[in-house]
Amino acid sequence: MDKNGSRKIKTILDCDVGHDDAIALMLGASHPEIDLIGICAVAGNQVLKKTLTNTLHVVQHLDLDIPVYAGMDRPMVRDQIVAAEIHGETGLDGPVFGPLTRKPEKEHAVNYIIRTLMESEEKITLVPVGPLSDIGMALRLEPKIADKIEKIVLMGGAYGLGNYSAAAEFNILVDPEAAHVVFSSGIPIVMMGLDLTNQALADMSVIERMEKLGNKAGKLFGDMMRFTFQTQRMFGLEAGPVHDVTAMAYVVRPDLFTTKPAYVEICLDKGSCYGRTVCDFYGIAGKEPNALVGTGLDLPRFWDFVEENLRRLN
Amino acid sequence: MDKNGSRKIKTILDCDVGHDDAIALMLGASHPEIDLIGICAVAGNQVLKKTLTNTLHVVQHLDLDIPVYAGMDRPMVRDQIVAAEIHGETGLDGPVFGPLTRKPEKEHAVNYIIRTLMESEEKITLVPVGPLSDIGMALRLEPKIADKIEKIVLMGGAYGLGNYSAAAEFNILVDPEAAHVVFSSGIPIVMMGLDLTNQALADMSVIERMEKLGNKAGKLFGDMMRFTFQTQRMFGLEAGPVHDVTAMAYVVRPDLFTTKPAYVEICLDKGSCYGRTVCDFYGIAGKEPNALVGTGLDLPRFWDFVEENLRRLN
Amino acid sequence: MDKNGSRKIKTILDCDVGHDDAIALMLGASHPEIDLIGICAVAGNQVLKKTLTNTLHVVQHLDLDIPVYAGMDRPMVRDQIVAAEIHGETGLDGPVFGPLTRKPEKEHAVNYIIRTLMESEEKITLVPVGPLSDIGMALRLEPKIADKIEKIVLMGGAYGLGNYSAAAEFNILVDPEAAHVVFSSGIPIVMMGLDLTNQALADMSVIERMEKLGNKAGKLFGDMMRFTFQTQRMFGLEAGPVHDVTAMAYVVRPDLFTTKPAYVEICLDKGSCYGRTVCDFYGIAGKEPNALVGTGLDLPRFWDFVEENLRRLN
Amino acid sequence: MDKNGSRKIKTILDCDVGHDDAIALMLGASHPEIDLIGICAVAGNQVLKKTLTNTLHVVQHLDLDIPVYAGMDRPMVRDQIVAAEIHGETGLDGPVFGPLTRKPEKEHAVNYIIRTLMESEEKITLVPVGPLSDIGMALRLEPKIADKIEKIVLMGGAYGLGNYSAAAEFNILVDPEAAHVVFSSGIPIVMMGLDLTNQALADMSVIERMEKLGNKAGKLFGDMMRFTFQTQRMFGLEAGPVHDVTAMAYVVRPDLFTTKPAYVEICLDKGSCYGRTVCDFYGIAGKEPNALVGTGLDLPRFWDFVEENLRRLN
Repeated sequence: MDKNGSRKIKTILDCDVGHDDAIALMLGASHPEIDLIGICAVAGNQVLKKTLTNTLHVVQHLDLDIPVYAGMDRPMVRDQIVAAEIHGETGLDGPVFGPLTRKPEKEHAVNYIIRTLMESEEKITLVPVGPLSDIGMALRLEPKIADKIEKIVLMGGAYGLGNYSAAAEFNILVDPEAAHVVFSSGIPIVMMGLDLTNQALADMSVIERMEKLGNKAGKLFGDMMRFTFQTQRMFGLEAGPVHDVTAMAYVVRPDLFTTKPAYVEICLDKGSCYGRTVCDFYGIAGKEPNALVGTGLDLPRFWDFVEENLRRLN
Repeated sequence: MDKNGSRKIKTILDCDVGHDDAIALMLGASHPEIDLIGICAVAGNQVLKKTLTNTLHVVQHLDLDIPVYAGMDRPMVRDQIVAAEIHGETGLDGPVFGPLTRKPEKEHAVNYIIRTLMESEEKITLVPVGPLSDIGMALRLEPKIADKIEKIVLMGGAYGLGNYSAAAEFNILVDPEAAHVVFSSGIPIVMMGLDLTNQALADMSVIERMEKLGNKAGKLFGDMMRFTFQTQRMFGLEAGPVHDVTAMAYVVRPDLFTTKPAYVEICLDKGSCYGRTVCDFYGIAGKEPNALVGTGLDLPRFWDFVEENLRRLN
Repeated sequence: MDKNGSRKIKTILDCDVGHDDAIALMLGASHPEIDLIGICAVAGNQVLKKTLTNTLHVVQHLDLDIPVYAGMDRPMVRDQIVAAEIHGETGLDGPVFGPLTRKPEKEHAVNYIIRTLMESEEKITLVPVGPLSDIGMALRLEPKIADKIEKIVLMGGAYGLGNYSAAAEFNILVDPEAAHVVFSSGIPIVMMGLDLTNQALADMSVIERMEKLGNKAGKLFGDMMRFTFQTQRMFGLEAGPVHDVTAMAYVVRPDLFTTKPAYVEICLDKGSCYGRTVCDFYGIAGKEPNALVGTGLDLPRFWDFVEENLRRLN
Repeated sequence: MDKNGSRKIKTILDCDVGHDDAIALMLGASHPEIDLIGICAVAGNQVLKKTLTNTLHVVQHLDLDIPVYAGMDRPMVRDQIVAAEIHGETGLDGPVFGPLTRKPEKEHAVNYIIRTLMESEEKITLVPVGPLSDIGMALRLEPKIADKIEKIVLMGGAYGLGNYSAAAEFNILVDPEAAHVVFSSGIPIVMMGLDLTNQALADMSVIERMEKLGNKAGKLFGDMMRFTFQTQRMFGLEAGPVHDVTAMAYVVRPDLFTTKPAYVEICLDKGSCYGRTVCDFYGIAGKEPNALVGTGLDLPRFWDFVEENLRRLN
């Protein structure tokens, strides 16, 4: 309950900031019904040192009073890969930040997640929008946390084409074994995969609309998405997706999305399908669904929602 | 050249008749620009004995003067699977045929394919609409045939969801190793996968339209597709796809289809993605495209085309 | 350095007690040059609750002042398997212990290992004789510990036949992904696999010799190995191997063993070789050796050594 | 029955000559109880063109009246590998042959094997000492041949260390899918793997002993094994194994060998164990044995046997 008596949703964000991660962070920090109690940085789009620095920059820039924890600097089992070509050398090319004074907490993100869940009386929602290394490790180090997790709303996977291999999406491909731990955990999962997130496109009109808010949040949105816009243009596109934002938005506004239940299995074979999220919508394998998979969103209302939240950040 | 001096496309059909196989067969036998020189039966929808019998029934029923060869009764490497639940116990439930007098040729389909190709002065088009066991075996037994194949227009695979596992389409899943041999052969390939063939739907109006032709071919179409229609209804659908027909149609009417080049790799790992046709449309793996993959079709013109050909059969 | 100025080897034992684990523990606790600073219990031969209880029983029974930590209760990635048919329902059938009053420490074994290594000025030797789950998790949670590990002397694997599948040894098969993390860590590894440990046989004369020591340790050895002896007899054998003891013995007495350098790769494919320790002794793959693999031992001197140490325990 | 009324064992040799292949060929051609009715050449140690040429050279050189057939020039599924570094550029470096006039038969080895088996009233023994491509293809092209095969005595595999990868032996690694077809066929199999064949060593005394026979066969043995001897010396060995000879010897002299029944499964996963012959001697997987696996041989009597046969060749 917050001071007004309305129940807020206790949420931990796990991210590899990242442009769309930063917007997801702003959403979580600004929405009145989300109680964003902690932010974990994980290696993904870039090495941990950079994703952690980026997270701290965003938190400091927006003057947010939320603790930041450093998590896994590599996947649970496989060798590390990063995506410098998408997010630039810093992992958050575009905006220019002042000197960094914010510090991360001393506790490891994995231990933070475990301790926080075990100490919490109410269930907590996890929103991982990078590789699932922190969540997978936490679930193995202390399996009892499963009972304390309300649900996991994640950005990752695809039932259509992949983006980092022909079969797999980046977040899952980076740590398929962690993804397997998460998807086989029995915890309610909402999977926002490329099929949905590639619909969450910010074109120039969206960018200008957010910049017109005239506050730090709107400007940061603009600085970041203009960079994304440029990299998308190299692929001939006139808009950039804000993948991670959909996961945070779903926490409070599931009505903006259409989803379908599926049994999702992570392909752990090392060949061409390593890291694929095999989505069985029709029960071909005879298994019960373990996830709600995002299939569509109401784009105009989605941007209204994002704008309304960025406006609050001041 | 046919008797009128127009060049006909020498074609061999390899099928596991099967409802849609039979329609593909009628198309190949009736189109004036297709010279259907031979038909091979392969195990697939049903065991070889049944698919061979079905093929002979159709050929006899329509009084076609085309030799029929028995091919592989099992996959190249993996254990056999059949799809009795889709095509019924006979593999072609629905139509009632008279006593069977037509006999298959003595030569094995694989040796027939090799001999015919090696003896032919012009290149030949292969249209496999069942598992690729015959074609894969022929390519390994006599690799030189690759130079004699104009192209392979096949029904199989999917870049979206599978139909016999969550990841794989039936024809490819039945013999993934043969599919690998075909897709890695360097021969031009047109892949008509589920993404396209599931659009080739015959609803009741199409069935009635073909039946109105008043000839044997139209009645056979109706008898078969009414059975398919029933099985589809169990899944809540009011129309049945004629997967295999698209492959034969493409041979003479590529203009009815949209396709995209892709590097297609068959997943041979035995886990959840065994038999998946991993389609890399964007060159993520840095490989040259090895196939044109069907993405869409002009459905009204497709049915016009089918009707026009069935009318010719009598 | 101990009080006499001679340098002791700081050692952590990670075990799934287990009959031979208990003897390895006695060895580590009794040898004057081994400073056994902590014992971690991990799921393996039996579920964690039982292996932890067994460890505490042995420590209490022998009145050892060594802290015991509970570790991973399941593998890093794969589903759990246990070996109740070898070690009995308790995981340490045979000896009868008094009521258990010893308690485990509160800290998780994985965090204990990390903290202890990071705080230690000298390097520490790890002796894991069960599945490698604790060590693998620790290496991923805090990769910097690699520089603080003197070496890892482990019981596990086989370059010949497996014992829990035709290709794999139990400890590795239980958690192949953890084994992969360990073997790919760059830390010096000594692998005591079945090829060697199956030579470390205790027949009835050995059992009686230890029992004649007349102390608790000798009696415990006898109580345990008589149980092992019975299960071996079901396989027609007149002696039981003390696998895990070889790893602890190697720490101070490498001269008792012959070893060969090899590049050891853990097979992570899920088929018939899942969990195999592929030992490349001849550099066929062109990789540098990452382990010394045990090939033989001097059995008479080995038993002399064990006896000498058990005698000390009182 | 031969003309003297004694029953001869109808045998087909399938080989990739190859030094030891040539000696196996001489054995089969000379033994009075072996009726070597045909020889098939397959790609393996070298490309097919070379292994075929080598086979023809040996047959011509020894003036043998046995037809030679060209078989598979590549594996059933995987990409081709050859072993030029072991057998030299020709695949049979060492001996110098006269101009080649012998020609192979026109029929493909796979079709020859099928036709011969199907036409034979008695069962025939197959002795494949190269990759199993021909046998695997024949079993798939005409599964009925299984009932006509007395047994398959093959050289290939290992239950210990591999020789072409750390896990796999060359013949099996070259075509694991064909090996899977053979081992899962239900036909009685005798597997002469490296564990046994590496014991069949020819040192200089053996070489000189065969040369002293003073005939073409003895000289050919010497010319070939002196080359093998040189390549072995590079590995520090003073003797060379005659792997393939053991398979042909077993056909008439099983008493020279010790074998153990096992369920042998070919690892088809593409990782570190691809092509491994997983030998389950103890029924861990609960499967019935499908092969007798060679474990030892009586070396002095083996060489007596070889000498006695080479002497006959003139």
